Amino acid sequence: MARITALETADVRFPTSLSLDGSDAMNPDPDYSAAYVRVRTDAGDDLVGHAFVFTIGRGNDVQVAAIRALAHHLVGRDADELLADMGGTWRGLVHDSQLRWLGPEKGVMHMAIGAVANALWDLKAKRAGLPLWQLLARMTPEELVDLVDFRYLTDALTRDEAVAILRAAETGRAQREEQLLREGYPAYTTTPGWLGYDDEKLARLCREAVEEGFTQIKLKVGADLHDDVRRLGIARQAVGPDVRIAVDANQRWDVADAIAWIKELSSFDIAWVEEPTSPDDVLAHAAIARGIAPIPVATGEHMANRVMFKQFLQAEALQVLQLDATRVAGVNENIAILLLAAKFGVPVCPHAGGVGLCEAVQHLSMFDFVAVTGTHEGRVIEFVDHLHEHFVTPVAVRDGRYHPPTAPGAGTEMHAASVADHCMNPDG
Amino acid sequence: MARITALETADVRFPTSLSLDGSDAMNPDPDYSAAYVRVRTDAGDDLVGHAFVFTIGRGNDVQVAAIRALAHHLVGRDADELLADMGGTWRGLVHDSQLRWLGPEKGVMHMAIGAVANALWDLKAKRAGLPLWQLLARMTPEELVDLVDFRYLTDALTRDEAVAILRAAETGRAQREEQLLREGYPAYTTTPGWLGYDDEKLARLCREAVEEGFTQIKLKVGADLHDDVRRLGIARQAVGPDVRIAVDANQRWDVADAIAWIKELSSFDIAWVEEPTSPDDVLAHAAIARGIAPIPVATGEHMANRVMFKQFLQAEALQVLQLDATRVAGVNENIAILLLAAKFGVPVCPHAGGVGLCEAVQHLSMFDFVAVTGTHEGRVIEFVDHLHEHFVTPVAVRDGRYHPPTAPGAGTEMHAASVADHCMNPDG
Repeated sequence: MARITALETADVRFPTSLSLDGSDAMNPDPDYSAAYVRVRTDAGDDLVGHAFVFTIGRGNDVQVAAIRALAHHLVGRDADELLADMGGTWRGLVHDSQLRWLGPEKGVMHMAIGAVANALWDLKAKRAGLPLWQLLARMTPEELVDLVDFRYLTDALTRDEAVAILRAAETGRAQREEQLLREGYPAYTTTPGWLGYDDEKLARLCREAVEEGFTQIKLKVGADLHDDVRRLGIARQAVGPDVRIAVDANQRWDVADAIAWIKELSSFDIAWVEEPTSPDDVLAHAAIARGIAPIPVATGEHMANRVMFKQFLQAEALQVLQLDATRVAGVNENIAILLLAAKFGVPVCPHAGGVGLCEAVQHLSMFDFVAVTGTHEGRVIEFVDHLHEHFVTPVAVRDGRYHPPTAPGAGTEMHAASVADHCMNPDG
Repeated sequence: MARITALETADVRFPTSLSLDGSDAMNPDPDYSAAYVRVRTDAGDDLVGHAFVFTIGRGNDVQVAAIRALAHHLVGRDADELLADMGGTWRGLVHDSQLRWLGPEKGVMHMAIGAVANALWDLKAKRAGLPLWQLLARMTPEELVDLVDFRYLTDALTRDEAVAILRAAETGRAQREEQLLREGYPAYTTTPGWLGYDDEKLARLCREAVEEGFTQIKLKVGADLHDDVRRLGIARQAVGPDVRIAVDANQRWDVADAIAWIKELSSFDIAWVEEPTSPDDVLAHAAIARGIAPIPVATGEHMANRVMFKQFLQAEALQVLQLDATRVAGVNENIAILLLAAKFGVPVCPHAGGVGLCEAVQHLSMFDFVAVTGTHEGRVIEFVDHLHEHFVTPVAVRDGRYHPPTAPGAGTEMHAASVADHCMNPDG
């Protein structure tokens, strides 16, 4: 029997605000950071589970404290047992009644649970000798739904419906694995579009994106309408008529503002409008979606949990669902969200970028392609070319596509030197 | 000029789980706790701002860490300036773009902002020599709306509409202050209804509640239907037909369960059904409200922010609004919520209990009575007879009514000895 011997944390920060990488209408100067966790066992196999919560600087220490508050759920416990029943393990974390008060199921405490769950998934995948996407894609429908907590979901998705969705996708799993390994999964790039870049840099990065094979880019908008019109003009001219351009307002608007602002930009053939308003506002997003149709509304990176995603789908408040690898409570909750999206027939185009979000989230889209929806039609994974060098298995994005990782694990392991060199307040 | 010299924190915990006080269907063994904060200045007047976030035990240390992460917003700054523009001060805290990522506007980080804002309100009221309710009730409509952030609210409530609501209530403020001081504000009690109490204790506490002058009690339900029917029978027999009995499921159900369960209890003449499901689920609450009408749905103690309250009102998903003194970002956000409730004509019956929630929240209802809605018709403040002895100005509940505090401040100051005796991991 292997026991969990340690849950180690580290407060890892990169001074990205110095270059204005990541600058948008709500986040002028992010310092991309990771509240990092390592789960160790006494198995003697040298396998360690790694994961993190992505933050943008200040407060990363609070996120680390929240991860540390979960140690008693793991340390000293039987690792084999915890990893064999990841659904039960997840519920044990999420339904800790005292910690639940701090959310419930949202914010700092919920993201901390996500990091701990994801570290266990990294360890489980390493033990299985498989990349996470393949580990998940080879589980039975029943094993997969056992990972999901259907509490608060049954008015939109029952366990039986979820099994039926997964059962329908069982045929063809093997061929789609092969296809994915051969062709990769479509990506789009946000690299050109940060608000802090000047026009020359914007145009150059747009041209480079096309040269690199991307068929969609994304621009940050929402700070100044005049600037947005000028920057969209520059971008559209640089990429030509056939490359899709999405825009991202990072929650800047109220309902009426959003609709009016987007009307001014609609002549540029907008692929989607991302985060037009508060990520908590189902009804406002629904109103905006009606107001700007047929331009789709995209959101999800700040959506707190599966209950919020459920409502956005029920209310037709989003047309593109952007799950995030570290916002909700980890792989388990993201499987629930993938199943909800499949039930409602809405494409999932994950949020990525930051620190390691690309490395982490690709596994979820690839699992979805192989074992849930069976398609990547109308789906793209965000790509931002930042900070990949710090990861042991960095993403392989070529010709505008994510090429699947084959190394065992969840992709969430940073180089020891990267953690050490960028660690504040080390706690061992 | 006075400067803020320190933001001190303390991790204060009471071992309430030993007596099963506070036990319900989702929280079997809470240890009522306070992430406590003191704001000091160099004014030389001995006035200190006190406030806290209420939690139920584990994780109180995480909440303390979040409060500490806000110190740089206050320490070294001009206290007079911060207190003179509490709207601007609040926005400075909530719109810290890096910290905002940890919510946004929800969970641990948002509650921490609430505690810091409330400590400033306590200090401001002490400086003014007034209890908080009176300080607020004597501000002009323009001063009050300046405290509110209307971002994400304008599809339901504009600044002008808010001014109009407050303007309409200006007549009669002085008479209502006098009436309040004379008669108090109606209360109801949850003391009898915790799930962990046996039938004999339930019946005895119900009888005592009636003897003490309460006209409404509340019972926890949702763990076992058979038990709920038996306990409601005991309670109804003990209090007679004229005392209102509310029930509280503490988020235990999905939509169909909630409707079915409540139908089984409806013969007991239920005053309201509280927290039937996830506090994030606007659409589920709306469906439940339609399904159990005319029994009202009550919720709010776990609702993350004003955007969620707005939607619940827009969707007719609640008929009784239960704001909480320490869940959202403090007095400012609760004023926004009171204004939203006034706009939609929904009664506010605050959540209280825990540690110091009664002491804190009474100020909001009393302010509402004097300066917002001008009525307490159909409104009651929750009362639980726990832990009041630790507060410098404990609530005065007599004859089933809260009698207004007259001491300067927000009611949120604990005795120094109580903090010291129950403090874990003291940080000075």
